[in-house]
Amino acid sequence: MSDGCRYFEDFQPGDVFEFKGTPVTKEEIIEFAREYDPQIHHLDEELAKDTILGKFCASGWHSCAMLMRLICDTYLNQQEHIGSPGIHEVRWRTPVEPGDVFHVKRTIKSARAVPGQLDRGLVRVFLDVKNQEGRPLLTMDCSALYRRRPAEEV
Amino acid sequence: MSDGCRYFEDFQPGDVFEFKGTPVTKEEIIEFAREYDPQIHHLDEELAKDTILGKFCASGWHSCAMLMRLICDTYLNQQEHIGSPGIHEVRWRTPVEPGDVFHVKRTIKSARAVPGQLDRGLVRVFLDVKNQEGRPLLTMDCSALYRRRPAEEV
Repeated sequence: MSDGCRYFEDFQPGDVFEFKGTPVTKEEIIEFAREYDPQIHHLDEELAKDTILGKFCASGWHSCAMLMRLICDTYLNQQEHIGSPGIHEVRWRTPVEPGDVFHVKRTIKSARAVPGQLDRGLVRVFLDVKNQEGRPLLTMDCSALYRRRPAEEV
Repeated sequence: MSDGCRYFEDFQPGDVFEFKGTPVTKEEIIEFAREYDPQIHHLDEELAKDTILGKFCASGWHSCAMLMRLICDTYLNQQEHIGSPGIHEVRWRTPVEPGDVFHVKRTIKSARAVPGQLDRGLVRVFLDVKNQEGRPLLTMDCSALYRRRPAEEV
């Protein structure tokens, strides 16, 4: 599967692309949390019930990382992607739990030149992630740099 | 080490707290990338030189995750932290490379009530991360929910 885009010029504002992942597992939630976010509600299903959050769920950073992997596998690693200068906003809407499947709707917000850097352009993207039942998981507003199409390929 | 804060009421706008981590390793950069961000410039020191980015570096999400772990170990896991509704902005300033040590300056931007939720408050935090030579690595503007101090402890 791919979004059909390769270079900067392929991204058109308003374009929508949808894709989905595989179920999140308890084991991967715990594994990530042990390494990067060792808070009780990400580490132990039973003890999580006694926290003020009240449930076991994935670290918000783990959700971002899982989304990144899904993006890499779905299209990014087939594209002339350079990197990202940053994230404009992440909203963790509801806790990501075992069994949740990321259903992602990607909308291209803008595609514009980078002053003084003729070989690349900046694509702004909005990602809306829900689970298989339509429950909102997270939204992300971010930017990515892409190479422009070389003259010989135009 | 700790910032001396436990409940919402302990965070005062303008307060600055500084802390630091340990050197980032090549091995952990590759390990994270294999799992969550398998782009060439995060996976292979030699092949990274031929990418348009031109150097081997950590995934931006790995940098966020390493910062989260450092925050958990330094103060968060000693506090009445509930969770975070989201991130207002992340800027990846320069690539994080092996040997970089996170030097973090945390500034409290605001601490305010949450309408209708008397047991908690929202703390907005700005994190400025540089390496050991003062090179900017990343900045993050984020919010976290904390429990209010119970009446019996006032």
